[in-house]
Amino acid sequence: MQLLEERIRRDGVIKPGNVLKVDGFLNHQMDVELFNEMGKELKRLFPSEKINKILTIEASGIGIACIAAQYFQVPVVFAKKSQSINLDGEQYVTRIQSFTHRRIYDVIVSKKYLGKNDHVLIIDDFLANGCAVAGLIELVRSAGAQIEGVGIAIEKGFQEGGRLLRGKGLRVESLAIVESMNDETGEIVFRH
Amino acid sequence: MQLLEERIRRDGVIKPGNVLKVDGFLNHQMDVELFNEMGKELKRLFPSEKINKILTIEASGIGIACIAAQYFQVPVVFAKKSQSINLDGEQYVTRIQSFTHRRIYDVIVSKKYLGKNDHVLIIDDFLANGCAVAGLIELVRSAGAQIEGVGIAIEKGFQEGGRLLRGKGLRVESLAIVESMNDETGEIVFRH
Repeated sequence: MQLLEERIRRDGVIKPGNVLKVDGFLNHQMDVELFNEMGKELKRLFPSEKINKILTIEASGIGIACIAAQYFQVPVVFAKKSQSINLDGEQYVTRIQSFTHRRIYDVIVSKKYLGKNDHVLIIDDFLANGCAVAGLIELVRSAGAQIEGVGIAIEKGFQEGGRLLRGKGLRVESLAIVESMNDETGEIVFRH
Repeated sequence: MQLLEERIRRDGVIKPGNVLKVDGFLNHQMDVELFNEMGKELKRLFPSEKINKILTIEASGIGIACIAAQYFQVPVVFAKKSQSINLDGEQYVTRIQSFTHRRIYDVIVSKKYLGKNDHVLIIDDFLANGCAVAGLIELVRSAGAQIEGVGIAIEKGFQEGGRLLRGKGLRVESLAIVESMNDETGEIVFRH
């Protein structure tokens, strides 16, 4: 998606250790106008009328998922990263290793909001090693629901997540795929 | 806001300990169509053209803030609840006590995304004892920015947060204010 690639080039910052900072428009400050264009594009990429729910994970997936949901006219469920006293006992649980935070945490979805009649589009801001999306897939499968696809804002094409997920036969669409990036020159190459 | 009150009556669950569970439409599964009506109403309540940024806090404020931001045509910044290696050193930091999670955590906003020229509308899903909003206000003041108001989905009118914030001269608008609720009868009374 050209608009997103241009924005990454303009406002993204490449840091050592394969870190791409896009917190100016994607995951700290959020450009909702850009999110709308991304939401429209996700609907174009996943036109299936079967999709009746969008699943994402807190925190930075929520904004994109909610804006995109307007084009799908479906509710959003976000998986929560820790136990809260506001959640009932009836939950699907999985464990995810975070690339960004370098730690392992439990992720939960209430059984009330994911079930065998659901056709789920998974949406997240980043796809790197694929652990977060793999965790969401496990939650969907625990519920006996169908995965209609995985929509990602930015995929780090040089990490294995995209390859692993597509290798399992999942339809993964990333709005921008970073083929390579160089923190010394600031150069960034996108896959097309 | 009648639509929200009706939804709370229909799908909200009152639990012992003054817990109002609205995770079917507000803070776990999110009804984006309802959020759109809430966003329109927030714009009606805060028509000021000065507002150039919406500030919220992860995770459950993000969805409402992003949908509302479309009516204000401004970006959203969400305060983060813990240090991440993806954030630079230059941050405003405050400490918030969570009613829901019964713990204390640090909350940060990058100095890049909040500054003295900003006119900020704070948006959050719940107002109870007011600690989260008080923390966001402290972040805004640390930045030398102006607070144009506080927009809340559901206020627990029987807790002190709303009174404390309004007592400081802040304009606080809650789309639904629960005057009282009874976990035995399920009865809920709204303030008008």
